[in-house]
Amino acid sequence: MKTLHVDLGERSYPIYIGTDLLGRPELVSPHVRGSQVMVVTNETVGPLYLEKTLQAFAAFETGHVVLPDGEQYKTLETWNRIFDALLERRFDRRCTLVALGGGVVGDITGFAAACYQRGVDFIQIPTTLLSQVDSSVGGKTGVNHPLGKNMIGAFHQPRCVLADTATLQTLDSRQLAAGIAEVIKYGLINDPEFLAWLEEHMAALTGRDPQALAFAIERSCADKAVVVAKDEREAGSRALLNLGHTFGHAIETGMGYGRWLHGEAVATGMVLAAELSERLGWIGSADVERARALIARAGLPVQAPAELSADRFLELMAVDKKVIGGKLRLVLMEGLGQSVVTDRFDPADIRAVIEAHHARAA
Amino acid sequence: MKTLHVDLGERSYPIYIGTDLLGRPELVSPHVRGSQVMVVTNETVGPLYLEKTLQAFAAFETGHVVLPDGEQYKTLETWNRIFDALLERRFDRRCTLVALGGGVVGDITGFAAACYQRGVDFIQIPTTLLSQVDSSVGGKTGVNHPLGKNMIGAFHQPRCVLADTATLQTLDSRQLAAGIAEVIKYGLINDPEFLAWLEEHMAALTGRDPQALAFAIERSCADKAVVVAKDEREAGSRALLNLGHTFGHAIETGMGYGRWLHGEAVATGMVLAAELSERLGWIGSADVERARALIARAGLPVQAPAELSADRFLELMAVDKKVIGGKLRLVLMEGLGQSVVTDRFDPADIRAVIEAHHARAA
Repeated sequence: MKTLHVDLGERSYPIYIGTDLLGRPELVSPHVRGSQVMVVTNETVGPLYLEKTLQAFAAFETGHVVLPDGEQYKTLETWNRIFDALLERRFDRRCTLVALGGGVVGDITGFAAACYQRGVDFIQIPTTLLSQVDSSVGGKTGVNHPLGKNMIGAFHQPRCVLADTATLQTLDSRQLAAGIAEVIKYGLINDPEFLAWLEEHMAALTGRDPQALAFAIERSCADKAVVVAKDEREAGSRALLNLGHTFGHAIETGMGYGRWLHGEAVATGMVLAAELSERLGWIGSADVERARALIARAGLPVQAPAELSADRFLELMAVDKKVIGGKLRLVLMEGLGQSVVTDRFDPADIRAVIEAHHARAA
Repeated sequence: MKTLHVDLGERSYPIYIGTDLLGRPELVSPHVRGSQVMVVTNETVGPLYLEKTLQAFAAFETGHVVLPDGEQYKTLETWNRIFDALLERRFDRRCTLVALGGGVVGDITGFAAACYQRGVDFIQIPTTLLSQVDSSVGGKTGVNHPLGKNMIGAFHQPRCVLADTATLQTLDSRQLAAGIAEVIKYGLINDPEFLAWLEEHMAALTGRDPQALAFAIERSCADKAVVVAKDEREAGSRALLNLGHTFGHAIETGMGYGRWLHGEAVATGMVLAAELSERLGWIGSADVERARALIARAGLPVQAPAELSADRFLELMAVDKKVIGGKLRLVLMEGLGQSVVTDRFDPADIRAVIEAHHARAA
């Protein structure tokens, strides 16, 4: 087992990464400050890992909530079900919430912990690759609004994170690939060495080799932790983590939540970001090809959906949180593994890149 | 105009107290960091002060939301209407929310600011005495849940507070008295000198004398600011501010939100706290009589509702946030103006105090 420390002053916490960590009370117990623990999971993950997780918290008064599975349920209504459960059981302000599941469970549960009685503790047990590399670090929590993804939320750091690679063996292939999209993202942002490692080990990752997975998780979390420690509240440089996300959010929202997985939309978003960077003359066509090939080898989509017109695409991008003072900012590439937050582009260039996708698809 | 500074490190902010402050852009403009301002108010306050408030923000892109009036609308549903308005107008993460109204508008709006895009700025313009002395300081925001008051919320500090005593001239008498309840609370907690001032000036306060009101607001905010600065996240001593509130919440919840005003319930709650303190031998019957008389002179109820049985009362008190590890803590008095947070009492004593009220009423 490896332990990675996320350094955020008094909000610092450890990430434990390894195989078969779920049933180990000695890892989680020291991070529970009160006497009550509420485990939140969903109908897919619950039958697999809820019992084992509850056993690890057997020393405490436990309860559990099973939410429906899917991004379309990442809503205020689902979020409120956690409060129902907490209040029916009369859980007090020293209770701990445990998020057992993927990114949706983690985001909703973390946001419930941020707001229950104005803030209680929580522990993340991410069971998808995407959530292990993405939601484990950064403290972003929240839910979607019909008019935009993640528009309602809070920054709330977990007390600890347990990334058990054994849970990835039961993950379906599409979900695994979606997680690899975020892993690739860390290489593309600012870690060319990791990018080269990924090109060499992509088959091991898609083949679920535990050692390759553990390395990829640790490296991704470490890369992310450096960015987050510099800019916890996302005032500036943290926006780098949104590589592919502004395009991706437009795809997710435009196609209807749940049709494209978040990681799939980000994958295509990264291709679009690379293409826009090439169009601006910042990287070469060989760079774009290298990024696109790696993303495709992970089994991820590299083509923007034909149903989404360029007009609608641009409209959806305009409500993204990255808009400051009416000016859209994007994460683009000055090299592979060398990304920047920038507004030095023209909306017409975005349109051209999207229309080129539609032309290829036609 | 008086300016009181609330000292919370990088979250410090000023409270401006005086007459006719609403229409003065030079007070609020320096506290708006972005270009967009959304004023949230309700159907009672909006017709009186919305136009004037919007004029003060004329240098910015403005929008407004008018919520229904009343504690029964302090819900997640009402809260969500603010997000609808913000997203329909495409307000970005640098926008500022302005709460124009009483405590309900302030709590909902502050909580929306805490969660919109994971946190935006807000300005408080409290228009009731209760919200001027209570919500102005402390950063507590939130909404009610059917199973408990203020169970969902966040700590979120305003950028500034504007307490315009001119708005109190239009307040109905019951609302004014409810505010005086919180003013009396600060005297009873730890300010015997202020308590004596209140005994002398109660007629001026109920008569809406602007100078007496300004003094009472300033002194109350200053008293509260000292307590909050010591314990921003309510880990310990801040609980003193809950004098009368555990009893009061039980009354509000038990009678149905909206039937008793918050301040009225707190007023009766303070009488119950004094009586319990007397029963424990900590204060004398003359002290209780002095507290009860002052509260009654403000036009506030001093009698627990007969409809609420002692059983139901105790049950409702048990879900209060002040319960830690299953043990109820209350704010009781070791003297008038000398309150303590304590669990040194028996639930049977609470029952006896409530039953004595019922016996008197019968």
